[in-house]
Amino acid sequence: MTSVHHNTVSSSATSPLRLGIAGLGTVGTGVIRLIRQHDGLLRNRTGRQIEVVAVSARNRTRDRGIDLSGLRWHDDPTALANDPDVDVVVELMGGAEGAARTLVTEALKAGKAVVTANKALVARHAQELAHLSHEHKAPLLFEAAVAGGIPAIKMVREGVAADALTRLGGILNGTSNFILTEMAETGRAFEDVLKEAQDKGYAEADPSADIDGWDAAHKLSILTAIAFRPIVFDSLAVSGMRRITTDDIHQARKLGYAIKMLGVARRLPEDRVEAWVQPCLIPARSGLAQVNGVYNALTTEGPFSGPITISGQGAGEGPTADAVMADVIDLARGHGLPLWGRVDEQAPIPCEPVGNLASRFYLRITLTNNVNAETTLGELRTILGNEDIAVEQGHHHTSQGGATQIILLTKPVTLNDIDRILPILEEMPIVQGTPLALKVEDLP
Amino acid sequence: MTSVHHNTVSSSATSPLRLGIAGLGTVGTGVIRLIRQHDGLLRNRTGRQIEVVAVSARNRTRDRGIDLSGLRWHDDPTALANDPDVDVVVELMGGAEGAARTLVTEALKAGKAVVTANKALVARHAQELAHLSHEHKAPLLFEAAVAGGIPAIKMVREGVAADALTRLGGILNGTSNFILTEMAETGRAFEDVLKEAQDKGYAEADPSADIDGWDAAHKLSILTAIAFRPIVFDSLAVSGMRRITTDDIHQARKLGYAIKMLGVARRLPEDRVEAWVQPCLIPARSGLAQVNGVYNALTTEGPFSGPITISGQGAGEGPTADAVMADVIDLARGHGLPLWGRVDEQAPIPCEPVGNLASRFYLRITLTNNVNAETTLGELRTILGNEDIAVEQGHHHTSQGGATQIILLTKPVTLNDIDRILPILEEMPIVQGTPLALKVEDLP
Repeated sequence: MTSVHHNTVSSSATSPLRLGIAGLGTVGTGVIRLIRQHDGLLRNRTGRQIEVVAVSARNRTRDRGIDLSGLRWHDDPTALANDPDVDVVVELMGGAEGAARTLVTEALKAGKAVVTANKALVARHAQELAHLSHEHKAPLLFEAAVAGGIPAIKMVREGVAADALTRLGGILNGTSNFILTEMAETGRAFEDVLKEAQDKGYAEADPSADIDGWDAAHKLSILTAIAFRPIVFDSLAVSGMRRITTDDIHQARKLGYAIKMLGVARRLPEDRVEAWVQPCLIPARSGLAQVNGVYNALTTEGPFSGPITISGQGAGEGPTADAVMADVIDLARGHGLPLWGRVDEQAPIPCEPVGNLASRFYLRITLTNNVNAETTLGELRTILGNEDIAVEQGHHHTSQGGATQIILLTKPVTLNDIDRILPILEEMPIVQGTPLALKVEDLP
Repeated sequence: MTSVHHNTVSSSATSPLRLGIAGLGTVGTGVIRLIRQHDGLLRNRTGRQIEVVAVSARNRTRDRGIDLSGLRWHDDPTALANDPDVDVVVELMGGAEGAARTLVTEALKAGKAVVTANKALVARHAQELAHLSHEHKAPLLFEAAVAGGIPAIKMVREGVAADALTRLGGILNGTSNFILTEMAETGRAFEDVLKEAQDKGYAEADPSADIDGWDAAHKLSILTAIAFRPIVFDSLAVSGMRRITTDDIHQARKLGYAIKMLGVARRLPEDRVEAWVQPCLIPARSGLAQVNGVYNALTTEGPFSGPITISGQGAGEGPTADAVMADVIDLARGHGLPLWGRVDEQAPIPCEPVGNLASRFYLRITLTNNVNAETTLGELRTILGNEDIAVEQGHHHTSQGGATQIILLTKPVTLNDIDRILPILEEMPIVQGTPLALKVEDLP
């Protein structure tokens, strides 16, 4: 079995490399703009002319602010897969199923190289795509699918390819990081900031992919497959940030932590893999805690390479178009790779159940009115202690809404321990609403 | 002209890739250790066996803690260039001239791929090496030469290859960053911390390469050639950190800045290039200001990719061996590239004279005893104003040694302006010693 793919994208080629682009939203038009603006630079970097010859999008007449004359237009994107003048299909439509999946599948079957920014597609159909890419010797590249303009895939698949990484993770979604940053800096409520982000176009009308962790989960699943081994996407534990309040952010800061939406994967003994996406407390002095706004960051750790962190803009027209074109340059240079940068085709495995994973936890318990906070703090320590959950630190404060809240930091326990105690706490007459538990992730 | 090299390191090869290693110091033995420890991983990543078949070092009998039996030993490293069983020469001897230069030159002439960690060699003989690599279609890779384990070369040459970068720079030397960090955190003097670093083996007996900026200059020269165009190494303005005191670090912090040794290059109009290495004031809240100890960091900026920062351990056995092996993996995967990632062979140009570059400056002026600081502050503002140097902020303080010091932050002026005023200040009877001027580099 050979590790490298060959076809029209050959390493000795000096002929033009011809692209067919499916999807002319901001990224698609950004790609065309970049190619025109950096024409000489691209030729110099690769020794070849890179040109767009065909496009496909739903609306032929919409003004996209760029000249599309002279480009062959396919109403059906799948036609790009069979267009004999197209060497590389660039899929920028999005969506794990439907037209995007059909196009990518057909293009690989036709032996064409594919570049995509579609994280959902790559994460959810990993095994099928890896197999098709291998069988038809057609490279499938997806730098733009993970962390926008940051060369995160290249770093893991090539930059630290000699190391047996032990851990990777970081801030993989810019929208949720923007919301948490705004909440921390302005003290505004989650719903307020979300609405502003939606008005400004940073967040979708349906914000679930960003704030419930699915976007980050797709990216983490792809990075895990490259660094460790493919995982069953649906086995990834994902939890969102809707319940985080500015009170939580301030109480965490008082304890020396910031709250960030993290995606993390670890190599466990016996070829098992831990992977999850959730809001976590991380040390306020850590590098990741300084990554604010729409920025993304990824840290890898390995026995030889040590910790390496890369950060930058995780989305947007320019960075994403640049990442798409980095893949195209690799192809023009004749650099193909198997999907995960490995020659064996490993079947996806389920992630380690998160219930078994131990860490410290932050607990926020809101009390009903007229309860003595100091006495309750002592009682809660006893109740948790009886369930083998030791409390490292505890204090109480008055929330923005005027309620008394108990804040506890536990010693290391499993999520199963926490899940057992939460309903017990919630049923106590002195407790109001549902207590919140957040994982503490200690970082370099 | 084709952009990619072919020879024994072919992209369709499945035969073993055979390495000859010259230099068995910590990095050389680290490479052998990594190959043995990650044997299966490397085969999986490349589809090929990667093996060391020959070595060369000065001392055959020294105990290096690894088993060298079964490896062919060449007393003359140049013999590796002509060993028919060696596909890739790994040069880890160091030095811009002598045996290292001869070996690399001969290996390229023999059409062998070369991997090196030798920043001085690559920076100082850039044009000759680029030409040899091109003429003999022999790839020369040097990821380990810049920022140790951080894939900085890969990021610039491949990760953001589609963008026309406007600026790159960062903390490119771990030893000087360790010293500045220790001075900032402990308040100890430069000489003290340097001695500790030498005792611990972080700094050489002759520390000049690290603290006078030459090591960073070699790295910056290489990065500049990839991002913009090759520069004449001797035209790079380099200034060291020997005159920085803990007083300077504290006064800079009072103004909202940290002091870091930076290497920075900018693309200027008309294909000119600005490049320099010097201690600078950078905003204390910037990402680079958080990079402490022996860590290195590099930031690139481009119109499409935006700012991207990568950081990690800039030296050491593990990270450097990992970077060497990332290059070997690229070769095993059949990924060769021209030296600077561009197909044209540009002649080096001199850097823009730094005297013409404008920025704000930090000035520290020590006064003789019994001078009224407040009056002098006003007088200095007038003297500088007469020379068209406007002062943005000024204050005085008493140094650790008990002397009164005036600290000024100028508005943007050129280095020529500063160089004109410094002798005038130094000759004033109320001024003691030589005033210090440090560039202020504003960062994202």
